[in-house]
Amino acid sequence: MNDLERAIGDLVIANRILAKEDVVDAYGHVSIRHPQKPDHYLLSRSLSPEFVTRDDIIEFRLDGTPVSDTRPAYLERFIHGAIYEARPEINAVVHSHAEDILPFSISKTPLCCVAHVASDMGAHVPVWDIADKFGDETNLLVINMEQGRDMARALGPNTVVLMRGHGFSAAAEGLLKLVRMAVYLPRNARILLAAMRMGEFKALSEGEIRTRNRFRPGAPEMQRGWEFWARRAGCGDMLADSKGGV
Amino acid sequence: MNDLERAIGDLVIANRILAKEDVVDAYGHVSIRHPQKPDHYLLSRSLSPEFVTRDDIIEFRLDGTPVSDTRPAYLERFIHGAIYEARPEINAVVHSHAEDILPFSISKTPLCCVAHVASDMGAHVPVWDIADKFGDETNLLVINMEQGRDMARALGPNTVVLMRGHGFSAAAEGLLKLVRMAVYLPRNARILLAAMRMGEFKALSEGEIRTRNRFRPGAPEMQRGWEFWARRAGCGDMLADSKGGV
Amino acid sequence: MNDLERAIGDLVIANRILAKEDVVDAYGHVSIRHPQKPDHYLLSRSLSPEFVTRDDIIEFRLDGTPVSDTRPAYLERFIHGAIYEARPEINAVVHSHAEDILPFSISKTPLCCVAHVASDMGAHVPVWDIADKFGDETNLLVINMEQGRDMARALGPNTVVLMRGHGFSAAAEGLLKLVRMAVYLPRNARILLAAMRMGEFKALSEGEIRTRNRFRPGAPEMQRGWEFWARRAGCGDMLADSKGGV
Amino acid sequence: MNDLERAIGDLVIANRILAKEDVVDAYGHVSIRHPQKPDHYLLSRSLSPEFVTRDDIIEFRLDGTPVSDTRPAYLERFIHGAIYEARPEINAVVHSHAEDILPFSISKTPLCCVAHVASDMGAHVPVWDIADKFGDETNLLVINMEQGRDMARALGPNTVVLMRGHGFSAAAEGLLKLVRMAVYLPRNARILLAAMRMGEFKALSEGEIRTRNRFRPGAPEMQRGWEFWARRAGCGDMLADSKGGV
Repeated sequence: MNDLERAIGDLVIANRILAKEDVVDAYGHVSIRHPQKPDHYLLSRSLSPEFVTRDDIIEFRLDGTPVSDTRPAYLERFIHGAIYEARPEINAVVHSHAEDILPFSISKTPLCCVAHVASDMGAHVPVWDIADKFGDETNLLVINMEQGRDMARALGPNTVVLMRGHGFSAAAEGLLKLVRMAVYLPRNARILLAAMRMGEFKALSEGEIRTRNRFRPGAPEMQRGWEFWARRAGCGDMLADSKGGV
Repeated sequence: MNDLERAIGDLVIANRILAKEDVVDAYGHVSIRHPQKPDHYLLSRSLSPEFVTRDDIIEFRLDGTPVSDTRPAYLERFIHGAIYEARPEINAVVHSHAEDILPFSISKTPLCCVAHVASDMGAHVPVWDIADKFGDETNLLVINMEQGRDMARALGPNTVVLMRGHGFSAAAEGLLKLVRMAVYLPRNARILLAAMRMGEFKALSEGEIRTRNRFRPGAPEMQRGWEFWARRAGCGDMLADSKGGV
Repeated sequence: MNDLERAIGDLVIANRILAKEDVVDAYGHVSIRHPQKPDHYLLSRSLSPEFVTRDDIIEFRLDGTPVSDTRPAYLERFIHGAIYEARPEINAVVHSHAEDILPFSISKTPLCCVAHVASDMGAHVPVWDIADKFGDETNLLVINMEQGRDMARALGPNTVVLMRGHGFSAAAEGLLKLVRMAVYLPRNARILLAAMRMGEFKALSEGEIRTRNRFRPGAPEMQRGWEFWARRAGCGDMLADSKGGV
Repeated sequence: MNDLERAIGDLVIANRILAKEDVVDAYGHVSIRHPQKPDHYLLSRSLSPEFVTRDDIIEFRLDGTPVSDTRPAYLERFIHGAIYEARPEINAVVHSHAEDILPFSISKTPLCCVAHVASDMGAHVPVWDIADKFGDETNLLVINMEQGRDMARALGPNTVVLMRGHGFSAAAEGLLKLVRMAVYLPRNARILLAAMRMGEFKALSEGEIRTRNRFRPGAPEMQRGWEFWARRAGCGDMLADSKGGV
């Protein structure tokens, strides 16, 4: 199995993990930048992540056109291309409607990091409202590059951008870091919501977040997460050929 | 398999989906208007939706009398007939006690749409209190056409009507739209409740709701939901003969 | 299978349902009055309800002494005897630590009925604090008849009594009514808690509760619940010999 | 099977229970003091608790060095050694990120005992903030004995210490008591959070907590819990050789 095949295998595992952990349901999607062609990315055809297999992965150009596939694509694939275009260091992107982050997308209260397991989310989570630029008659979806680029601008140098009334998109250097963050982001939101009810609370400091983010994805404690989520998602048999989301 | 048989198959799938997604439990029911006889509808005999099969489906007249079946019927079947009677464009109706919408049925705070996945619910969700017209000695159930019609009047041109201390009823042009809405309505309620705790929040605008509702049920992204929920509900084998809830 | 054997079968089903629906875990128990000997009751030996089978059921006198069994008994069996002693019309008793009713047991806010499915709980739910009579050095458990009788006095003519920092006990004329109420009581508590957050709310009226409680346990809509919960709990095969919790 | 082997079997069961009951996920760990060598403890290699088997258990000295094993160890094993060092009566230690206790770790509201099932947590739960002594540039983890000892000092004579933005560590004389407490601590936190929303509430008194903690782990009602959680966790077959967590 060559490097591309192993990367595709890990993308399948990521799809299954995100489904199992309720980050995505029928909707939501995850991609990786093509390991050999930085101006292409790999993303499933229009399919619920829980059912994605190797054969469903399509190669796209950054503008969202498939290289050679004619099967229906996700309407919102432009989220992925726009982030890869704006952020050369990014190799993995996810888009999700995870329920527990939605309240923060429609509120003036910022989503901040209070739980160490979620520190990959960073200290600042911007909110993007599609109506600010595209007005009141959108279906809220990111359905072209112009909208994708506007969202990517709102994301800026951060890891996560909330999308008002819709969900979030997030970006990471690697797939494991992205998956781990996406799994723990809703948990962080629930903890924050509960703590706010009790009054004053203490968030992680920027120093702590910076220090934590020095973890290498290949370290045993990071791989422990990948193995755990993959096995829970029924992908234990795919671990032998996995790159570990690295 | 003819069109009626395929419609009945989809109604069975809808029953199973609503059970799996906790929209109904032992109680609650879903119907479709008869595809060839607009003054008849199809609804299971008195049975928990999780266990419904083709043989359980009964044909009813709009007034709630079965055409030729003698098995016990749902006490509240009048909900269905009254809505089909009042709304000729409606082809699918659901009644549910979904826990997360109940708080809004007994509160003065209106349930509004804050999550794009729930936009089929519309901008306005009226509350119907059976006691307003039928007094303090009902069992809260809609057990005759008079009560059904009163509830249908409260529903008006909307998609969802909350029933005080009881649940909700909802109506759609087609089964997939109805099922999708019923699955996401409780999620929308939870998100709204959490957002309200943090103060001011932004709902979907009427323009956004209108724009979103232009999605055709046959589109790949809509069918993706039908396939996802059906497979989760253990009905994957019924998809080959499904009309896709269209 | 004779009547006693069928009653014992239903008690086994009730144990499994309450475990499956998270009303009990390792702790909590359910009993019935002996169908032929009104001064005896039937209750499992000390065992988690999920694992109870016919052979685990022990016959007790109302004072909590087993008729002829030497296996360890539940420490709190006195709850059952004390209620059967005080309330001749009662034939089924449950004790539970269900999480969602606990907040009301330690609060000054009364637990009232807001959801029609929970109307068997009645309009008034008293709270019993063991410390009021037995002081500060108890382990909070009801471990003798004196404590059981004090709790039964607090229950009075009601269906449910909350036990401060501990759980609840409840009583009904029949097993199905008891199980149904125990399943829906925590749901009612969650709905009430959510509604209270939004301000004013409307509870079921006493007239509505009275009207609803006229349902006969043998009616199809009541049996639908028994069948649903029994099948979910893996007891589908026991339904053929079931009395339906009546 | 000798005593050490049976103790190791129980440690495996404890790992599986804590995973099944969502006290740990990919992260978190549980140890016992070596039954024959009080200055050694037994803890899995770096592995998600759900997957731990006998062969994964490593013997450590109190300073966190393995006696003879070279497999990667948990980064935070120093939590265990530091507690065993400070508290000779303690024979079991757990570290967890359980979501529902996190809000209390970042809040000024103390976590107190309101549910009798959680009384092993004690009347006082201190919070330890790693930043107080180790500043703003830690990764929040306890990665050496100095940090472990500082945390153990904050724990003092109590059972549980919350770790700000991170989780909790807890200590008990025996494994069953520890597991039971760890399972019920998050439930107690949820109940407390809900009760606080309604205003004033009543916690367990110190007398009640003291009285409850006289339960012997070998008593039938305590063993009932061990059996229940072990069977739920799929370890029913290991119960025959179990010491019952005693």
